[in-house]
Amino acid sequence: MEKKGNLIVISGFSGAGKGTVVKKLVEKYGYSLSVSATTRAPREGEVDGKDYYFKSVSDFQNLIDYNGFIEWAMYVENYYGTPRKFVEEEMAKGNDVILEIEVQGAINIKSQYPDAILIFITAPDVATLKDRLAGRGTESEEVILKRLKRAKEESEDIGEYEYVVVNDDLDTCVDSVNAIIVRKKCLRENNIELIEELQKELSVY
Amino acid sequence: MEKKGNLIVISGFSGAGKGTVVKKLVEKYGYSLSVSATTRAPREGEVDGKDYYFKSVSDFQNLIDYNGFIEWAMYVENYYGTPRKFVEEEMAKGNDVILEIEVQGAINIKSQYPDAILIFITAPDVATLKDRLAGRGTESEEVILKRLKRAKEESEDIGEYEYVVVNDDLDTCVDSVNAIIVRKKCLRENNIELIEELQKELSVY
Repeated sequence: MEKKGNLIVISGFSGAGKGTVVKKLVEKYGYSLSVSATTRAPREGEVDGKDYYFKSVSDFQNLIDYNGFIEWAMYVENYYGTPRKFVEEEMAKGNDVILEIEVQGAINIKSQYPDAILIFITAPDVATLKDRLAGRGTESEEVILKRLKRAKEESEDIGEYEYVVVNDDLDTCVDSVNAIIVRKKCLRENNIELIEELQKELSVY
Repeated sequence: MEKKGNLIVISGFSGAGKGTVVKKLVEKYGYSLSVSATTRAPREGEVDGKDYYFKSVSDFQNLIDYNGFIEWAMYVENYYGTPRKFVEEEMAKGNDVILEIEVQGAINIKSQYPDAILIFITAPDVATLKDRLAGRGTESEEVILKRLKRAKEESEDIGEYEYVVVNDDLDTCVDSVNAIIVRKKCLRENNIELIEELQKELSVY
């Protein structure tokens, strides 16, 4: 029996460093990364097809109509969505797929894929969160405040996540997320074939 | 609130390499290791107080009477037991404690410590198990056959364990066991204080 890959949903406050965590997970552990589609404007240096698939509103709405997303949502006045094809193909190949999406998307995923692993990344405290948002230097005061208000809302939804991982030290955070995924492969119920084979081989003694 | 350490129970077939896995877990990740007491004779090179506390039958029975063990059992005609004091003190200090014990002991532990993490280590297949038992070179054919019969019985109890980890590559095995423990610390329910603090700090926005 082919083993299907895991679906790992990573959310977290803006400023928690999700993007860096996800990038490192892909580099260090070889996870497949789903690239989201969005209607927001590219930030400086962002590359279409790598950071996001940048779409017009009409193109995005057309993809919604054609069932092209496994989830989509509106966030700070822009559309964000997860293209269906890549995720389903990778999982079928047995590859673990990471989605970096916001809370509403995570809830949508969990309802469609009950085995999905939902992980919320947070900074160790709100002061650090604010520092990181300001430090990025690409956002206005107004946008930072909007993000903090959004973070307040998101903090009320943490209960939707099975895991909460603090991004204080990047490597520790990345290794913790990896541990969550590795552990799932070690569950007895995910090793039934092996156990039955061992029992069969030992039955002769 | 002080966090209590985890109790990690490692069992597995004789010849699965449990001892090496446990040694490496202690060296690489700093876990506290509970040293068992036993009435069996020391093997060549084994050190009292490091590999086991070697006890006479009457001393062992006396310790049973005085509640000195959190579990004890008979295995291949010898007593084995886990001294209570070390385990309880380490856990109270917040240290994660590893016990390397056999199946009956693991079941006893689980009934007393429902949060204990039970992990069964196996070789990838029975041929490898036999090779490793023979390769050790310290056991007679008769003892090897006895161990294989015992392994047959143990294989019927794997259902008591939440996790099954294959020891094919030692480092992979060790890292998988560590992942199981790290993952538990990331569960939302184990981070309630952090979450409440974040929610409180964000409530002003």
